[in-house]
Amino acid sequence: MSMHPHEGRLDRVWDSDAPRFTARTPRIVAARRLQRRRERDETGRFLAEGPQAVREALTVPGVVHELFGTEAGLDRYPELAAAAAAAGVPVSPVTDDGLAALTETVAPQGVVAVCAHRDVPLAAALREPPRLAAVLAEIRDPGNAGTVLRTADAAGAGAVVFAGDAVDPYNGKCVRATAGSLFHVDVVRAADPAAVVAALRASGLAVLAATGYGETDLDDLADAGGLARPTAWLFGSEAHGLPAELAAAADARVRVPLHGRAESLNLAAAAAVCLYASARALRSRESSR
Amino acid sequence: MSMHPHEGRLDRVWDSDAPRFTARTPRIVAARRLQRRRERDETGRFLAEGPQAVREALTVPGVVHELFGTEAGLDRYPELAAAAAAAGVPVSPVTDDGLAALTETVAPQGVVAVCAHRDVPLAAALREPPRLAAVLAEIRDPGNAGTVLRTADAAGAGAVVFAGDAVDPYNGKCVRATAGSLFHVDVVRAADPAAVVAALRASGLAVLAATGYGETDLDDLADAGGLARPTAWLFGSEAHGLPAELAAAADARVRVPLHGRAESLNLAAAAAVCLYASARALRSRESSR
Repeated sequence: MSMHPHEGRLDRVWDSDAPRFTARTPRIVAARRLQRRRERDETGRFLAEGPQAVREALTVPGVVHELFGTEAGLDRYPELAAAAAAAGVPVSPVTDDGLAALTETVAPQGVVAVCAHRDVPLAAALREPPRLAAVLAEIRDPGNAGTVLRTADAAGAGAVVFAGDAVDPYNGKCVRATAGSLFHVDVVRAADPAAVVAALRASGLAVLAATGYGETDLDDLADAGGLARPTAWLFGSEAHGLPAELAAAADARVRVPLHGRAESLNLAAAAAVCLYASARALRSRESSR
Repeated sequence: MSMHPHEGRLDRVWDSDAPRFTARTPRIVAARRLQRRRERDETGRFLAEGPQAVREALTVPGVVHELFGTEAGLDRYPELAAAAAAAGVPVSPVTDDGLAALTETVAPQGVVAVCAHRDVPLAAALREPPRLAAVLAEIRDPGNAGTVLRTADAAGAGAVVFAGDAVDPYNGKCVRATAGSLFHVDVVRAADPAAVVAALRASGLAVLAATGYGETDLDDLADAGGLARPTAWLFGSEAHGLPAELAAAADARVRVPLHGRAESLNLAAAAAVCLYASARALRSRESSR
């Protein structure tokens, strides 16, 4: 109970007497189709489930189209229903099976929001160039992509670019892996990774390719001051790595040093080490000004 | 083909005319039971699947009891069969369904080894204290535990302790997530995390608890020289974090700084940042000597 300090202090903003939507109610049937990529692409909408994602989605004006929740879910997180209502977002109670139809996890936490796609063109994300950015090049695994986006947000990145044949950022598993960070950073979808590299460089960012076969050691680069400037990191898929021509287009190909006998790091770990090395160098630069 | 330079150069060390074991052959039925924890605990054996795990297992004398492979798998990795045979390890051809019975992945790569548990008592792992160690406290998720072990190996850790009610390190998913690193580090299983902390400290290691609520910022600690000494990191589960009394027993409670708006990092990312911060500080210390 102490986890939910708002509990019981907010009045219900939704109509307790309204009939609950079920898995067969047309609005739920329509929303459920957003679990398919084609439907997301056609409508420009997606589903964000659970209180953390809904909370973060509601911080971005105009993103949430509708909030569905079980009676228990809406009562447990009354601040979400209140924020939705204050923003003019319909709040609709659903039955347990109605919620289950919209969610993909074993234990959905009672709320799910229909959200608008929120990616921006690359040029918009670079109008004020971020000091840190991440490019997910051809990363098709939704869990990996979402985790790297979350880590990039934590490290202070302002933009995350899904480049080439990467996963749909609005894939349910990807959205969940971002743990709300999908709503914190500029999300960009760009078909041509090479054009992304050119645009990042034109905006004054150093472009570093993270690859186990890189000629530059990450620690050496940090020691030489090479990370203390606005930087975009390129990450490739765990299975296939970065496309060779993309790695070649970067300013440097950087490897995380392997001190033990492991052959490699997994993508989430390598990205965390690279992004946090940049974050530390950028912070040191700022505090020494 | 270029990925397997040995291909075709080694003679078959196994009997091509021997009948292939099937999913119903008693030896396969017995080995398959090792997918259950109770059977692993009773026999002290486990299964390592895929060429990378088998290769690393074969580097540790006495670990591999038996190597099973499909004809295609044994022909594709003849160096594994040769190494097994040279060590006196039986190499047994199996049918495709025999292999499928022993493996848990959708695309098993043709080889699986029956291995002996290889954990050592904590005192043995600390006889020559490692300069870096990781303690997985009550981490029950096998993928997370295996990934952190792999990252710890990459960062140069000599020992990884599964403490308290942690996952069985020989769980198939955990073994796969280690990507061979299970065979590189001293693996320790210890029931009492508090006793582990005491033993690590008695061996001269600093004990740092990684927690999002820590009072010490990781970068500040690095700047102050606090990482340039032998260190054991304590990591808790993603869902529940470190037990409070264990965090309190550490020399410091350390948080990875959150520069953006993410509420937290996932375990694999946080552990990578902490372990690599230590690795870098230890390397700087050694190169400046």
